[in-house]
Amino acid sequence: MVALSDLTPEQHRLLSEQTIELPSWAFGNSGTRFKVYGTPGTPRDPFEKVADAAQVNRFTGMTPRVSLHIPWDETEDYSKLRADAEEQGISLGTINSNVFQDEDYKYGSLTNSDDRIRRKAIDAHLHCIEVMNQTGSDTLKIWLGDGTNYPGQDSINARQGRLAESLAEIYAALGPDQRLLLEYKFFEPAFYHTDVPDWGTALLQVMALGDRGVVCLDTGHHAPGTNIEFIVTQLLRAGRLGAFDFNSRFYADDDLMVGAADPFQLFRIMREIVTYGALDKNSGVNFMLDQCHNLEEKIPGEIRSALNVQEATAKALIVDEEALAKAQADHDVMAANGIIMDAFNTDVRPMLAELRAEKGIDPDPYGAFLRSGYLEKIREERVGGQQASWGA
Amino acid sequence: MVALSDLTPEQHRLLSEQTIELPSWAFGNSGTRFKVYGTPGTPRDPFEKVADAAQVNRFTGMTPRVSLHIPWDETEDYSKLRADAEEQGISLGTINSNVFQDEDYKYGSLTNSDDRIRRKAIDAHLHCIEVMNQTGSDTLKIWLGDGTNYPGQDSINARQGRLAESLAEIYAALGPDQRLLLEYKFFEPAFYHTDVPDWGTALLQVMALGDRGVVCLDTGHHAPGTNIEFIVTQLLRAGRLGAFDFNSRFYADDDLMVGAADPFQLFRIMREIVTYGALDKNSGVNFMLDQCHNLEEKIPGEIRSALNVQEATAKALIVDEEALAKAQADHDVMAANGIIMDAFNTDVRPMLAELRAEKGIDPDPYGAFLRSGYLEKIREERVGGQQASWGA
Amino acid sequence: MVALSDLTPEQHRLLSEQTIELPSWAFGNSGTRFKVYGTPGTPRDPFEKVADAAQVNRFTGMTPRVSLHIPWDETEDYSKLRADAEEQGISLGTINSNVFQDEDYKYGSLTNSDDRIRRKAIDAHLHCIEVMNQTGSDTLKIWLGDGTNYPGQDSINARQGRLAESLAEIYAALGPDQRLLLEYKFFEPAFYHTDVPDWGTALLQVMALGDRGVVCLDTGHHAPGTNIEFIVTQLLRAGRLGAFDFNSRFYADDDLMVGAADPFQLFRIMREIVTYGALDKNSGVNFMLDQCHNLEEKIPGEIRSALNVQEATAKALIVDEEALAKAQADHDVMAANGIIMDAFNTDVRPMLAELRAEKGIDPDPYGAFLRSGYLEKIREERVGGQQASWGA
Amino acid sequence: MVALSDLTPEQHRLLSEQTIELPSWAFGNSGTRFKVYGTPGTPRDPFEKVADAAQVNRFTGMTPRVSLHIPWDETEDYSKLRADAEEQGISLGTINSNVFQDEDYKYGSLTNSDDRIRRKAIDAHLHCIEVMNQTGSDTLKIWLGDGTNYPGQDSINARQGRLAESLAEIYAALGPDQRLLLEYKFFEPAFYHTDVPDWGTALLQVMALGDRGVVCLDTGHHAPGTNIEFIVTQLLRAGRLGAFDFNSRFYADDDLMVGAADPFQLFRIMREIVTYGALDKNSGVNFMLDQCHNLEEKIPGEIRSALNVQEATAKALIVDEEALAKAQADHDVMAANGIIMDAFNTDVRPMLAELRAEKGIDPDPYGAFLRSGYLEKIREERVGGQQASWGA
Repeated sequence: MVALSDLTPEQHRLLSEQTIELPSWAFGNSGTRFKVYGTPGTPRDPFEKVADAAQVNRFTGMTPRVSLHIPWDETEDYSKLRADAEEQGISLGTINSNVFQDEDYKYGSLTNSDDRIRRKAIDAHLHCIEVMNQTGSDTLKIWLGDGTNYPGQDSINARQGRLAESLAEIYAALGPDQRLLLEYKFFEPAFYHTDVPDWGTALLQVMALGDRGVVCLDTGHHAPGTNIEFIVTQLLRAGRLGAFDFNSRFYADDDLMVGAADPFQLFRIMREIVTYGALDKNSGVNFMLDQCHNLEEKIPGEIRSALNVQEATAKALIVDEEALAKAQADHDVMAANGIIMDAFNTDVRPMLAELRAEKGIDPDPYGAFLRSGYLEKIREERVGGQQASWGA
Repeated sequence: MVALSDLTPEQHRLLSEQTIELPSWAFGNSGTRFKVYGTPGTPRDPFEKVADAAQVNRFTGMTPRVSLHIPWDETEDYSKLRADAEEQGISLGTINSNVFQDEDYKYGSLTNSDDRIRRKAIDAHLHCIEVMNQTGSDTLKIWLGDGTNYPGQDSINARQGRLAESLAEIYAALGPDQRLLLEYKFFEPAFYHTDVPDWGTALLQVMALGDRGVVCLDTGHHAPGTNIEFIVTQLLRAGRLGAFDFNSRFYADDDLMVGAADPFQLFRIMREIVTYGALDKNSGVNFMLDQCHNLEEKIPGEIRSALNVQEATAKALIVDEEALAKAQADHDVMAANGIIMDAFNTDVRPMLAELRAEKGIDPDPYGAFLRSGYLEKIREERVGGQQASWGA
Repeated sequence: MVALSDLTPEQHRLLSEQTIELPSWAFGNSGTRFKVYGTPGTPRDPFEKVADAAQVNRFTGMTPRVSLHIPWDETEDYSKLRADAEEQGISLGTINSNVFQDEDYKYGSLTNSDDRIRRKAIDAHLHCIEVMNQTGSDTLKIWLGDGTNYPGQDSINARQGRLAESLAEIYAALGPDQRLLLEYKFFEPAFYHTDVPDWGTALLQVMALGDRGVVCLDTGHHAPGTNIEFIVTQLLRAGRLGAFDFNSRFYADDDLMVGAADPFQLFRIMREIVTYGALDKNSGVNFMLDQCHNLEEKIPGEIRSALNVQEATAKALIVDEEALAKAQADHDVMAANGIIMDAFNTDVRPMLAELRAEKGIDPDPYGAFLRSGYLEKIREERVGGQQASWGA
Repeated sequence: MVALSDLTPEQHRLLSEQTIELPSWAFGNSGTRFKVYGTPGTPRDPFEKVADAAQVNRFTGMTPRVSLHIPWDETEDYSKLRADAEEQGISLGTINSNVFQDEDYKYGSLTNSDDRIRRKAIDAHLHCIEVMNQTGSDTLKIWLGDGTNYPGQDSINARQGRLAESLAEIYAALGPDQRLLLEYKFFEPAFYHTDVPDWGTALLQVMALGDRGVVCLDTGHHAPGTNIEFIVTQLLRAGRLGAFDFNSRFYADDDLMVGAADPFQLFRIMREIVTYGALDKNSGVNFMLDQCHNLEEKIPGEIRSALNVQEATAKALIVDEEALAKAQADHDVMAANGIIMDAFNTDVRPMLAELRAEKGIDPDPYGAFLRSGYLEKIREERVGGQQASWGA
């Protein structure tokens, strides 16, 4: 058992100030290539998504920002969307581009050998920067579906060169307080090669841009067996870990709730963050969710996910670092591992309930939300229209 | 170099008589969860799919059957579809059920704890058997999307029991000359557990049904590193290898053209088939393609795939089995492996051109088809309407 | 928080009676192909291994059996070894054969095409049965290193047939109260194909033998991404889950302490056991450790491992099964998963300390052992001689 | 069919000048953690290894260098070893350090927190540089077994820092014509984390050293599913691909003969090399084998491996690049992939036999070696003494 009073003031502050950014698209429908199942109450537009995101923040007290996806969240009046969000206690965060759902991008976007299409893809990003200027966002996140399905389909090398040129043009259009966040992914939607498949590639590309080029680590985007916390440390050492996309996976990019597949891994990741000093809100690392809720309810899914990250963080914070340093110096493998496991095996939920009480929110965010009647309300109200999903 | 005259009469017969069944859905559009790209000329109905399949057979001389997917290929008059196919020189083959694209199946079909939905899923299979009776098909192929996304979502054990009961009812409805072919898949669309994830599960389920229960091996449905040819041999030894779904994969179930990702693996698979005596048309093993053509042209993709299987088969047939048996008995690893590699490294394409000449078809099926003008014709004619795809 | 008093009498009994069998070889040195590092105090013979195993039982109160490996633990007087063990409060358990470390087995043992070598390998097993008769063991465990490194090196099919014949002869020599436990392994030491690579193969082989043929599931012996708890359920349904070899892995067969790499997976496995009713000591499932301690201290490593299994079991037992059944029936994915996670996130260590107090042992087995001075004693006493390791 | 006369003079030159460096340790015994099997005729010292390596060059005409491993190949008189090699027509190549087989390195070498051990590991490398000065080698290759087996065992970050410091000291001791070649490996012998697990880490470490820091790509050292040819291109683009360690794998680091597991992958790798212009002998990329021959004969294994690389290279050279560029520009996926496959499916062995005739060596290196009587000779002569293996 651990209580809030067991924490140092610094640990207390870090835990209390921790925030997680929510993705607007988590509130829309999603699915597999076989089927997208619907859910009653799903938002039909960005305003309804923002409203749902605000609910998560209302009950968890730790998700005060929501990322947008352009064009999924395209709207005529971003200042209205911004005001709407702020009224509900949250702000608009990272802007995500989307250059993987137009017929023109069948063979690539920023890497396409066809100048017209490449131009179009770059312009889509310039438009995103305009949106950023209206929403007050400071980060442009780029994930590309670019790649090839068959050996020989295109030149890996030439595509890498075109990518560098495209990114440079986009980067040049950013304001001095804006940064470019490049995400890598091992595979999918491309099957043979992905143009930004790993952290090494993403890092080389953003280092070539300048200081405001950073890397996004999506926890689901690695080969089987990859030690993700090692990559966290490498990107921190390089000063280029811009953000996380949290989610979890059993097989491929399953996009399940973070912490659902391997909670011990999430704890190990957060421990690298904590020990490196990157939990602080000024560290430059943005903690974001990027998940789908194919079968489960979406708002509860986001609440559970935020709590999972918070619990893993609390466990990471209570590791007895002094004892651990000694065990490591002594090469006492059993003792060192035991200290880590002791923190992981501790139930931190009562302490987090205390923290919430301190903040004046319900100690049980998940239950409180279910009891609030919000789900019933949106199921009733949001009838008709087109439910938002990845494609719309 | 190897020539047709180097083959024994038996090898010649086996190669000449080899056939591959095509999937109707390969001619429709397909894609990833992110996007389905269209292609001009894509069929709008099962009749146009059958016409395209007939083209593949016309040029390869080895694909005289086409599998249907119900309800994707639902039509009011199956006898017309059958007559249409036969007129073009092919027959209707395996009937595939589809219980993974209706809202009711969100939490399972044949394994669902809701009796109404399970009833509906069984009935969908009984309908498939009616279709079989009209098309003259002898095989009902079942692949399920059933599974769960999160630990605890449902009972693995209870679902396995319900699956057994459902299959028994379907099996009982089959005619004495019809068989039930159960396909397994490692993961997807379910993310945490799949109800028929491996050959062991499929085998136990069909053994419980009776002699006409057999297993379908889809080459893309295994964990990374799995030795697929080993499974081929195990299913042959058990007398339960009913069919292949050929395709290839670099990562997950990428559904690429068979032989595109690892031609050496395809050769090893065909060698197990050849040495076990399962290449013969009366072996009970049906060789089928099950692929998507997301980016590439569909008819050319099917032609190339059929040729890839044929080339792998020819290489498997020319292994010097006598010398190999001796090397194996001597535990001469280098010699044994060398004999295998020698066959694989041989260019069998000239010999297969000879075989085609013998059959009176163009020695170059791929080029001949492109020159035939068929693609241009369908691009022109098939305008308007709804292109067939996985969802329609 | 959960206390012993929260358990039902049946849950209490199951937890209290749970036992885990230790492997004698865990107390010897082990390593990788690159290097075997030594540790002061390592046993030099089976008697010292048994003494170490007895220490684990003394402090955990739940490891009353030790498995032997023949010839690693060969001794002239098994009755003395047995008496020695019993005097220290433990018994001799499963007998493991070893037909993978003699020059003769370079190309296989029970699958070898050379009759002389196959005879020798069968005889080695008959010898193990004699040892069983002397030690009172009821289980012969067979894990084979058999397989090939290169395609073509040998016939997969012929080897499978020879394996069946060899096993039949061994099985015939077993007494009516003895059983044959066959272990499968995905790969290693063979690189291209393993003769018993998966649960399907092991199951087919033991089903062909008779009722006393059962399968051993080693948690480290699967392809990346394999859902192990699914296999647990399949083997239980088939009535053939004979035993576990517990350990854990990040990559291949890393043989780390069970629960060290993925404690959530261990919990899920134990939950399938618990819900199937297979935790009971009369279930026929033997829970064994099979690990190496390359870097860490061996006795502490075994203690920690036993505790890890016990903690996972306790968490599995406290799942609110009634609420879970309802959530599953309602297809309420969030609730169902939440109930599972709630149990996993609970700290069961205080309850297990209670259980130990009830049994009259130290509530903190790990600390108590370290304080006992045993490690210092053996480091001092066991000087000279040849430390036991895999190869000796 | 393709003939030497079909090549351009440049293609002809590249193929004719291609060389591959052999590892001395391939001629010694090796095995798995379970067992190292011996082979009659295995060398007992570096002189016999060099003699065997010279045989490979004599028959293939393309392996004029042999890498040494220190201390495995430690000798009192390197100038004698060098003269010996040169007399037999080969030279001494890359020097490999070994800091993973001494008791002191149990918890790490260049990353160890114990200054004494880190000093010892650095000194071992300084000694290697002295050996280089005597042998005339220009490359110091560093592969480390460093890593941890359990989470918490040590600080990933601190170890990365110590590694950087250690490498800097070693780098500073190199002569102006010598380079430091750092090899990465996904896992093994460490199980939880490896200090240089991927190309990104290796690249960051060598970039910090200076221009003469380069990366070694071992084809067996990646996660399942990794697109290795992509990494080849990334390292070439960064100007840091120093060398290949060729081998092949089905599962982990199986160290099988290159081209044995996936010949199509080897072809794709060589195609990236060829199209980037890195095949030229002055490209700075050294092509080396790094394999074990656990079961198969060693010299024949090396010959086959060299030929496999040569065949893959020849296939890569004959790709119709002009037609391919057009197909790529047209986004004609089928045509582009077909052009690649056409080259891969071509039997280049007759052309390579021509090339050998041109060089005055036997067109069939493998058969000629077997007929030479060398194997029989060494089996007879090399009796007694200690066969070389990884540990000696």
